[in-house]
Amino acid sequence: MRVSRFFMPLMKETPAEAQIVSHRLMLRAGMIRQQSAGIYSWLPLGKRVLAKIENIVREEQNRAGAIEVLMPTLQSADLWRESGRYDAYGAEMLRITDRHEREMLYGPTNEEMITDIFRSSVKSYRQLPLNLYHIQWKFRDEVRPRFGVMRGREFLMKDAYSFDLDPEKARIAYRKMFIAYLRTFARMGLKSVPMRADTGPIGGDLSHEFIVLAETGESQVFCHRDLIEMPVPGADFDYEGDLEGVFNQRTSLYAATEEMHDAAAFGALPADKQVTARGIEVGHIFYFGTKYSKSMGAKVAGPDGTDVTVEMGSYGIGVSRLMGAIIEASHDDAGIVWPESVAPFDLGLINLKSGDSATDGACSKIYAALTAAGRDVLYDDTDERAGTKFASMDLIGLPWQVIVGPKGVANGEVEVKNRRSGERETLSVDAAIKRFAERPSF
Amino acid sequence: MRVSRFFMPLMKETPAEAQIVSHRLMLRAGMIRQQSAGIYSWLPLGKRVLAKIENIVREEQNRAGAIEVLMPTLQSADLWRESGRYDAYGAEMLRITDRHEREMLYGPTNEEMITDIFRSSVKSYRQLPLNLYHIQWKFRDEVRPRFGVMRGREFLMKDAYSFDLDPEKARIAYRKMFIAYLRTFARMGLKSVPMRADTGPIGGDLSHEFIVLAETGESQVFCHRDLIEMPVPGADFDYEGDLEGVFNQRTSLYAATEEMHDAAAFGALPADKQVTARGIEVGHIFYFGTKYSKSMGAKVAGPDGTDVTVEMGSYGIGVSRLMGAIIEASHDDAGIVWPESVAPFDLGLINLKSGDSATDGACSKIYAALTAAGRDVLYDDTDERAGTKFASMDLIGLPWQVIVGPKGVANGEVEVKNRRSGERETLSVDAAIKRFAERPSF
Repeated sequence: MRVSRFFMPLMKETPAEAQIVSHRLMLRAGMIRQQSAGIYSWLPLGKRVLAKIENIVREEQNRAGAIEVLMPTLQSADLWRESGRYDAYGAEMLRITDRHEREMLYGPTNEEMITDIFRSSVKSYRQLPLNLYHIQWKFRDEVRPRFGVMRGREFLMKDAYSFDLDPEKARIAYRKMFIAYLRTFARMGLKSVPMRADTGPIGGDLSHEFIVLAETGESQVFCHRDLIEMPVPGADFDYEGDLEGVFNQRTSLYAATEEMHDAAAFGALPADKQVTARGIEVGHIFYFGTKYSKSMGAKVAGPDGTDVTVEMGSYGIGVSRLMGAIIEASHDDAGIVWPESVAPFDLGLINLKSGDSATDGACSKIYAALTAAGRDVLYDDTDERAGTKFASMDLIGLPWQVIVGPKGVANGEVEVKNRRSGERETLSVDAAIKRFAERPSF
Repeated sequence: MRVSRFFMPLMKETPAEAQIVSHRLMLRAGMIRQQSAGIYSWLPLGKRVLAKIENIVREEQNRAGAIEVLMPTLQSADLWRESGRYDAYGAEMLRITDRHEREMLYGPTNEEMITDIFRSSVKSYRQLPLNLYHIQWKFRDEVRPRFGVMRGREFLMKDAYSFDLDPEKARIAYRKMFIAYLRTFARMGLKSVPMRADTGPIGGDLSHEFIVLAETGESQVFCHRDLIEMPVPGADFDYEGDLEGVFNQRTSLYAATEEMHDAAAFGALPADKQVTARGIEVGHIFYFGTKYSKSMGAKVAGPDGTDVTVEMGSYGIGVSRLMGAIIEASHDDAGIVWPESVAPFDLGLINLKSGDSATDGACSKIYAALTAAGRDVLYDDTDERAGTKFASMDLIGLPWQVIVGPKGVANGEVEVKNRRSGERETLSVDAAIKRFAERPSF
């Protein structure tokens, strides 16, 4: 993509309304624009990152055996009356009346609807286990939306729902998601720690929040230091094999959010293992048994022919919120530092003298070759000053920059800069092409 | 994907509420489930097709130079007051009040919001031309939703918006979308005819509907016969080159919707070229000049420094509706017949004797080899009767079936069936793998 044809409205000033660094940087990098309180448009750069995050979430859900569906944003109030949550949910639920005076709502979550789909379609235990997920916009009418996409009103969430014949099988479903979440966040460059958490309005008695540690985190968390750097299962992890090992390794060490904190147990840890920190919640999983299946009549015929009320869990990831969390965890004074897996482009190509035929020629050659090799290149072909181009490219945080100026080109050379480390290297044009065309050598 | 682990709730009975064949087949194939009037969940098979349609739309928008953004579903009423449409829009607009008593609405279209984004970010003619699109859920509160996803209330739409300095450049933007639409629909196996159309509430004086001819079409249309089979531009079409040729070739022949019909001009065509038919609208493009930019103050500094109110167009594709249109255009008595480009899986693998070790072994070998080659295979590994498996696979309409039974396997052979033609061929297991692993030989 050529910058001259792209839409990337960068801001020079730091926006006054943004209180945290991810919000400031997303506004300055032209990734989002607020349309109403807590409601954002995703501009091209933001949309690209959102799609990459979404796709990692999708791949890891699929890998763990969950199946993708897509439920609508609007739901019938009657469905929520069946579970008793229509009246219980409070002012965060956006209630809507349609032209026929039917009561609707903008879904804040989908336990009721998925249970309705299940009870209408699944009749036998032989169709279990089943885990259905979707990635869809939700709405929660926060009284005071803030921190940009971290606490918006309209937000993108992945929510999965598992159905099993008995509690033991439901715990297998829970562990699969537990492990899938570890992989999901790690692929985005995040160190997440699962912590025992309160189940809140979803209900149930087993729940973990996945927390990314960050100074600007919204809540206080407590955990054993070893959990932070603990390696996650690889892409070849067998979800049909042993799940206990990974699960027990994580859950045997102390980790809890403030609501579940046990000061005595925490204090019993060796002093150098006690981590008290701020955390950002990026995922939350629940095992709640028959809370919804019982009230809504979600039953299957069991092996002996008698009806069994199914055991359920639900599993959420804040897809749009993750973008803020990644930036909170990965930025410096100059701007965002994207992990390669979620960067809006693989690399930035900076032409230091647009209009100079040798420099233009070298840039065109690199751009064409890397685009043909399947790389997403953002080519700054504008006639801005070099200093502005450097600052813009650092701000938007692509992992690599290829810098092409007339002096270097006279020697057949370009400069390659790593955004995170700041390391620079001078390479021939062909060597730079080769470096980035062969992806694994990044 | 193994059928035993998938979620595909097929219906044996023809649902009484479905009046048209696409609605019936989508329900019977377990692709959708109605949650409220005109509001659907997309079950796994439907979600897969939706993603493929969406991706073709995206690729062709990108190819034509449009840039993807994502605007929220909910909008502020104030924005629509600026254009005067808040009061004008009528009962189809779903109006919402949030907890702070602010008036909102569920966007039925996005001219106002994109104009707001433009005016806040684009200041100079040098940033033009610009065409921004998004693929997002919309809501129109139809008084009588019907025909399944063809006329739903919550529906997925691609809408693009172009911004140009003058009418001539705006017409270039219009023609780019015109050509992109021809390619988009052709890639889905549809024969679309662009027809002069009424501009309706969007406004403006130049507009084309893209119509797919189908007996169950919602409206009467009239066109020159040569338009129906006219070839579309290839993937190498140069959007920066001549656009007039393709545009004039299409628009010089008679084609109009009922509202724009000129019986005299139509009657002047040779009798064998007069086509009167029913049509399904799958796209609609508009050039409306300064209708929104003027009322909302979307201006740029022109080449001479004076402000210029930008010329705009908008370009819609009914993404979820397209699924219905494709089925209307491509089905037979046994079920859906998917074009390969949008099929939920590339092929179906039918095990005629699950539990038989030789048959299971051959199926596993084929499944593993084709999955490794990147093919999406739906493997019916259940213990249903052969007749049920054949009927199910025909109903869901995958382009190819590989049928594996104990007799064939004893000779090292399987049967390959083309869903559309019904042609069958006996191949060795290895030849069948080779056939489908090498995609171009499909």
